[in-house]
Amino acid sequence: MKYNFSDKLSNLKPSAIREIFKSLSDPTVISFAAGNPAPESFPVEAIEKISADIFRTEPVTALQYGITEGYPPLRNAIAERQKKRFGEGMVRDGESVMVVSGGQQGIELACKAFCNEGDAVICEDPSFIGALNSFRSNGARTVGVPMESDGIDINALEETLKTEKRAKLLYIIPTFQNPTGITMSVEKRRAVLSLAEKYNIMILEDNPYGELRFAGKDIPTLKSMDDSGRVIYCSSFSKILSAGMRVGFVIAPDVILSKMTVAKQSEDVHTNVFFQMLSYRFMSEFDIDGHIAKINDLYRKKCTLMLDCIDKYIDSEYAEFTRAEGGLFIWGTLKGMTDSTPLVKKALEKKVAVVPGSAFNCDPSLPSPSFRLNYSTPSDEQIVTGIKALGETIREMYS
Amino acid sequence: MKYNFSDKLSNLKPSAIREIFKSLSDPTVISFAAGNPAPESFPVEAIEKISADIFRTEPVTALQYGITEGYPPLRNAIAERQKKRFGEGMVRDGESVMVVSGGQQGIELACKAFCNEGDAVICEDPSFIGALNSFRSNGARTVGVPMESDGIDINALEETLKTEKRAKLLYIIPTFQNPTGITMSVEKRRAVLSLAEKYNIMILEDNPYGELRFAGKDIPTLKSMDDSGRVIYCSSFSKILSAGMRVGFVIAPDVILSKMTVAKQSEDVHTNVFFQMLSYRFMSEFDIDGHIAKINDLYRKKCTLMLDCIDKYIDSEYAEFTRAEGGLFIWGTLKGMTDSTPLVKKALEKKVAVVPGSAFNCDPSLPSPSFRLNYSTPSDEQIVTGIKALGETIREMYS
Repeated sequence: MKYNFSDKLSNLKPSAIREIFKSLSDPTVISFAAGNPAPESFPVEAIEKISADIFRTEPVTALQYGITEGYPPLRNAIAERQKKRFGEGMVRDGESVMVVSGGQQGIELACKAFCNEGDAVICEDPSFIGALNSFRSNGARTVGVPMESDGIDINALEETLKTEKRAKLLYIIPTFQNPTGITMSVEKRRAVLSLAEKYNIMILEDNPYGELRFAGKDIPTLKSMDDSGRVIYCSSFSKILSAGMRVGFVIAPDVILSKMTVAKQSEDVHTNVFFQMLSYRFMSEFDIDGHIAKINDLYRKKCTLMLDCIDKYIDSEYAEFTRAEGGLFIWGTLKGMTDSTPLVKKALEKKVAVVPGSAFNCDPSLPSPSFRLNYSTPSDEQIVTGIKALGETIREMYS
Repeated sequence: MKYNFSDKLSNLKPSAIREIFKSLSDPTVISFAAGNPAPESFPVEAIEKISADIFRTEPVTALQYGITEGYPPLRNAIAERQKKRFGEGMVRDGESVMVVSGGQQGIELACKAFCNEGDAVICEDPSFIGALNSFRSNGARTVGVPMESDGIDINALEETLKTEKRAKLLYIIPTFQNPTGITMSVEKRRAVLSLAEKYNIMILEDNPYGELRFAGKDIPTLKSMDDSGRVIYCSSFSKILSAGMRVGFVIAPDVILSKMTVAKQSEDVHTNVFFQMLSYRFMSEFDIDGHIAKINDLYRKKCTLMLDCIDKYIDSEYAEFTRAEGGLFIWGTLKGMTDSTPLVKKALEKKVAVVPGSAFNCDPSLPSPSFRLNYSTPSDEQIVTGIKALGETIREMYS
């Protein structure tokens, strides 16, 4: 039987990352391709304790239907923590917070709330593939604006805003961007806000990695600098508590949250209650800041090791790399080449998996000279062996 | 600031049920308005045990990112159980099963996979409000076909299929339908399948209540009678294990599951892994059939009590009621009236909450003489007191 799929899904392909993941079932492959938190970053002992306590004391709350907006104590705790981190401008109170099933759902709901089929979402180019596919799966077009070393190219952004008449959302990952690891300067953040004001476009600020800073200083979020209710802020517990539990959150003006709530109700009714309760208890009964500091110690070491190996084993004549102050990724770019695909293939033959930059392009049919490296999941030994092999592969390609 | 929401969401209102729920914060109100499983139906002790075991033995699997399609052992266990219940025609194997975040997500993803904005989903009228809103939130139109006492009106369905040129999905809840409690006869199931064949439309079969049969005999699912790969089957663990955990499943041909998987990846990446593991362990280490039999004993008693009270306290001259053989709902209809809203309001003044039938209309602007009663959540005492008060209200309305 031939099926007549919707236009928006008929052209959507499973992500290139997914395809690479398949090759990872081979245990001899060293993977720099993931975006997973380190398994040792999960606070297993605390989770075990909280879990036992929830099922002993409040089982029915955990197992019964919940409210679409989220578990009220968690919403309040998130508001409090965000205020402490980014000031009073960040969030009014728990009612300005909506719990979602991972940051991914926040992105998807924002697109659903604002975009008709054929509308455009302006994105940093390259950008997070999960978000790009969310926009595409809602029938929106992804329109890319190039990245510079301190964030999106502001002049190119203004050009795009001028010419693209159906732009509804501007999607930005300002801190430790995926895939580039770049953090947007505070000046550029101000410029982005004022352009959004001038061209009347909503900003979708995605900040899943912001807590993972192991060097440098925090920069204010776009949301905390927004006076006009133009920013929808998404973040999650995936990188600091557990990815598998699927708990994220959105901070936005009431009227937007109310639209997103109706849309969420139609998608999954509510986020699983148990892990909302668990996240709340972890925040209120355990030392979440101390826990995050430990994760960042771990990632600082891993990132430093990977950069040291890059300096040692990869010829700087052939490739350059971003130097992240946090997050999960390093972005490599081949010099004088247009397409990293041959490198990705040859590296996989040498049992090293990296993600080709083209996967993150707003137009995935275009080639990219770049590739993404993840340092949170491989072991120290794998980092050394893998980067060494990558360096050899690159040298062979250029000779 | 004025926001320019998408067309599909700008007209979507929070459901009437949601609004009634707000009045339920008053603990003196007796609620027949919910669709929740009885709190005493959750196997708390088993869940506590399994949970402790998972966090002790496989914490990283439970807390790390998982596969979009679902936890493989659960997919296999679901396939096995469905085969045992409905025969070999029901499902090929675990690869034909996709885990979703509650049955609701299966419905939404099916719509996203097949409907462009402006396309139609043909529905039983009245139907499940959550599904209707899923279709609307994807920009699809809901086109209703009246219900009869043994399921959808087949002649009216054929008329609609003839005239509605943009129909992509036929949404059916064949067993213990929400809101009417009606079960479609096997003859009608065959007729629906052959009409779908004739007019080349996909069937979305929603079966969240099928396990809750406390009288009569199981009827084959549409899916198990489908030879041509035309049926997408949705069900869930919400009514038999826990609603709050958000674990449901879809059975469909591979090419459809692959589209729905790409769409799910863009919505929430995957369903929380822990409760997938827990559902699998409950199915394999505990007596799920015995557990479901206990739930059905409970619901048989509650439904019988409610129907006895209806016979005793509500004058059959004024209203008639469906007699469910399972599920969660009884559907009342006022005789010689067109609109049940005044009854719903007067009942709420007497501290009894029921849902007005209009909430379930494919065109919610039309009135309905009906209302929905739930018997799974109120206590026995509340059932007696509440139905008595409802009977008085109805008598007062007619005199």
